[in-house]
Amino acid sequence: MRSSPKQSTIITLLTDFGVDDAYVGLMKGVILGINPEARLVDLTHSIPPQDVTRAALMLRSAVDFFPPGTVHVTVVDPGVGSARRPLLLSSGGACFVGPDNGVLPPAARRIGTPKGYVLENDRYFHPPVSQTFHGRDIFAPVAAHLSLGVEPADVGPQTDSFVDLDLPQAKLSAGGVSGQVIYVDHFGNLVTNIDRTTLDRFPASTLSVSIGSMAVIGLVSSYAAVDEGTPLALIGSWGVLEIAIRNGNAARELRAKPGTPVIVAKRDSNA
Amino acid sequence: MRSSPKQSTIITLLTDFGVDDAYVGLMKGVILGINPEARLVDLTHSIPPQDVTRAALMLRSAVDFFPPGTVHVTVVDPGVGSARRPLLLSSGGACFVGPDNGVLPPAARRIGTPKGYVLENDRYFHPPVSQTFHGRDIFAPVAAHLSLGVEPADVGPQTDSFVDLDLPQAKLSAGGVSGQVIYVDHFGNLVTNIDRTTLDRFPASTLSVSIGSMAVIGLVSSYAAVDEGTPLALIGSWGVLEIAIRNGNAARELRAKPGTPVIVAKRDSNA
Amino acid sequence: MRSSPKQSTIITLLTDFGVDDAYVGLMKGVILGINPEARLVDLTHSIPPQDVTRAALMLRSAVDFFPPGTVHVTVVDPGVGSARRPLLLSSGGACFVGPDNGVLPPAARRIGTPKGYVLENDRYFHPPVSQTFHGRDIFAPVAAHLSLGVEPADVGPQTDSFVDLDLPQAKLSAGGVSGQVIYVDHFGNLVTNIDRTTLDRFPASTLSVSIGSMAVIGLVSSYAAVDEGTPLALIGSWGVLEIAIRNGNAARELRAKPGTPVIVAKRDSNA
Repeated sequence: MRSSPKQSTIITLLTDFGVDDAYVGLMKGVILGINPEARLVDLTHSIPPQDVTRAALMLRSAVDFFPPGTVHVTVVDPGVGSARRPLLLSSGGACFVGPDNGVLPPAARRIGTPKGYVLENDRYFHPPVSQTFHGRDIFAPVAAHLSLGVEPADVGPQTDSFVDLDLPQAKLSAGGVSGQVIYVDHFGNLVTNIDRTTLDRFPASTLSVSIGSMAVIGLVSSYAAVDEGTPLALIGSWGVLEIAIRNGNAARELRAKPGTPVIVAKRDSNA
Repeated sequence: MRSSPKQSTIITLLTDFGVDDAYVGLMKGVILGINPEARLVDLTHSIPPQDVTRAALMLRSAVDFFPPGTVHVTVVDPGVGSARRPLLLSSGGACFVGPDNGVLPPAARRIGTPKGYVLENDRYFHPPVSQTFHGRDIFAPVAAHLSLGVEPADVGPQTDSFVDLDLPQAKLSAGGVSGQVIYVDHFGNLVTNIDRTTLDRFPASTLSVSIGSMAVIGLVSSYAAVDEGTPLALIGSWGVLEIAIRNGNAARELRAKPGTPVIVAKRDSNA
Repeated sequence: MRSSPKQSTIITLLTDFGVDDAYVGLMKGVILGINPEARLVDLTHSIPPQDVTRAALMLRSAVDFFPPGTVHVTVVDPGVGSARRPLLLSSGGACFVGPDNGVLPPAARRIGTPKGYVLENDRYFHPPVSQTFHGRDIFAPVAAHLSLGVEPADVGPQTDSFVDLDLPQAKLSAGGVSGQVIYVDHFGNLVTNIDRTTLDRFPASTLSVSIGSMAVIGLVSSYAAVDEGTPLALIGSWGVLEIAIRNGNAARELRAKPGTPVIVAKRDSNA
């Protein structure tokens, strides 16, 4: 896969840059100047400024849907210009490029066992390297070179340690599972940190899912399983427990946001 | 056109997903994983949630500007997971993929006589198929396979019936034409459902176009034909009657929106 | 570079169209219908309607990061349909296509000495040519043909005169430099019209940068050089003097916007 001079490798971009400035476009110009055949895919550029946790969750939710060989570039980088290192994680046939601030490991671990490299070989940088925009001057050009077949070991020395985020974990107890909303999507659907495996401990029909003062009994398989305007719980497209309102906005109507507690309990059979 | 293994066919994407989540990016990852040479074009992802009519109008306005062989993927899908069928319409050398909720036929009819197929061959799906995100799991991968040369008949059985929308039609009367605003664009220009052919019944200089209490006499050929801040009527880039204010926002200044009535009358020659 | 029939030349797009309509998508459909191998890069579509100056500054800030042969299409066009000419500037190996309203020359001059051509050869247009959307009917198709190797001289007659904007210039005085904010980015960083060369006249550590009632002493090399929430001045990623607040929003906190004066003075050594 790494033999031809030009390759149609996918490079994804995930940033907190927004799309009103040309910053994302500059990264694409640098990439295509190195590999004109790279296929660029925007994950999103709407991460709130400096929200590393949200970017890490978004990247982790995306990796399953890209083919082997994809290079993921993530630039949410409050420490640009500081001592924080520029990092490459190689994992499961994919490459993850971005700052060493915890944004990369959750995605890299989802598809394999990451090997880390510090980006030091400035042969793969875009000169002159600023201290304010490593997305354009370091991460984009390194990703482009990786897409052409440059080996991870060529970009810099291997490292076994990299920053990890303390992502909120759901907790199991005798009575059920205690988790939280981790993401609210465009439709107002509430994505939680309670995964399918955890829920498999309970027969779906005996589950009660509570958020605030609202409780839903049982999981359904689609939004269309209930009437319009009705709350529901299901395993959503993120592969985890999601609370939604059919053709409505659950975040608004239930006043929920990232951090809002979600409780899954076995339904009291006497109730 | 359908012989080489990898082809640079255009695949357009039109959704109500917004661009803050990675959902559109996941569809692109699935498509490029199947056909790395597909050319992806976003029409828009800003359709208001579940607004099938607006998506249908947008798609219809776009099809004339894409070459034969284009595959159009439209995902505005309030019925995802219900009994609504996933549909392919083949028409005029193009393919239209999306839910059978009326969003596809107006565009497909604009360029030919659509043949319908129900997407049933799960060989072309992206497993596991969720009941919440057919855009990613059914429509995107089917579109990618079509772009590689898969024949419409391979994706599932033919169907002669598909859901049609009841789009608002302009009405002819002795005195003129009674229509409405169907779309307000980024500049506040008011796109109507009164087409060029209908207007050709009236000499352009004797026309009066009324919206609310405002009337414009005559059609002009460009925004620049009037002074800044002046209302005007013309055949706009959608190919239909459009009301605008030069370098101003007609929707805001005339308080108009989709559904606002627009009357075209023959100007009273005594007036 | 201009010999093969299909080429992966980059075409950038910069408009005031927003992304809620399909207008940008239509331009891409027209381009890919002519050159399926063109690589499309959005600079931004968020230029405020008809803000030619802002588009000119944005384009100028981008050109350094695209390889030779790139075709830049800019459509901020309040005069569409008027006598304003459609223009091509050829400069430094790149092509710039757009209305002759001043939006192109600052970028073209940054990388070379522009040669101008009036777009008149309708063989390279997309018929029928409207008087309302030259982006789709003239600029996009001409750009696509240029990306395939059409020579600038083929698109129309050469011209030595084209409209120039009166961009705000920083002024040197005995005491220092008097400039202004020209752009506020997504992070609230304040980009000025004071360039690196001008600042080189002052030793960095003796500089005082004032905006409103706030003054910063000295330039730093990165946002991370100061504590969170602290104002700073540096040469930013635009290559000019930028005022920012680390991990904060300088525009909001300093109530600054394009036009706000910025003064650079030699620090009083007695202070």
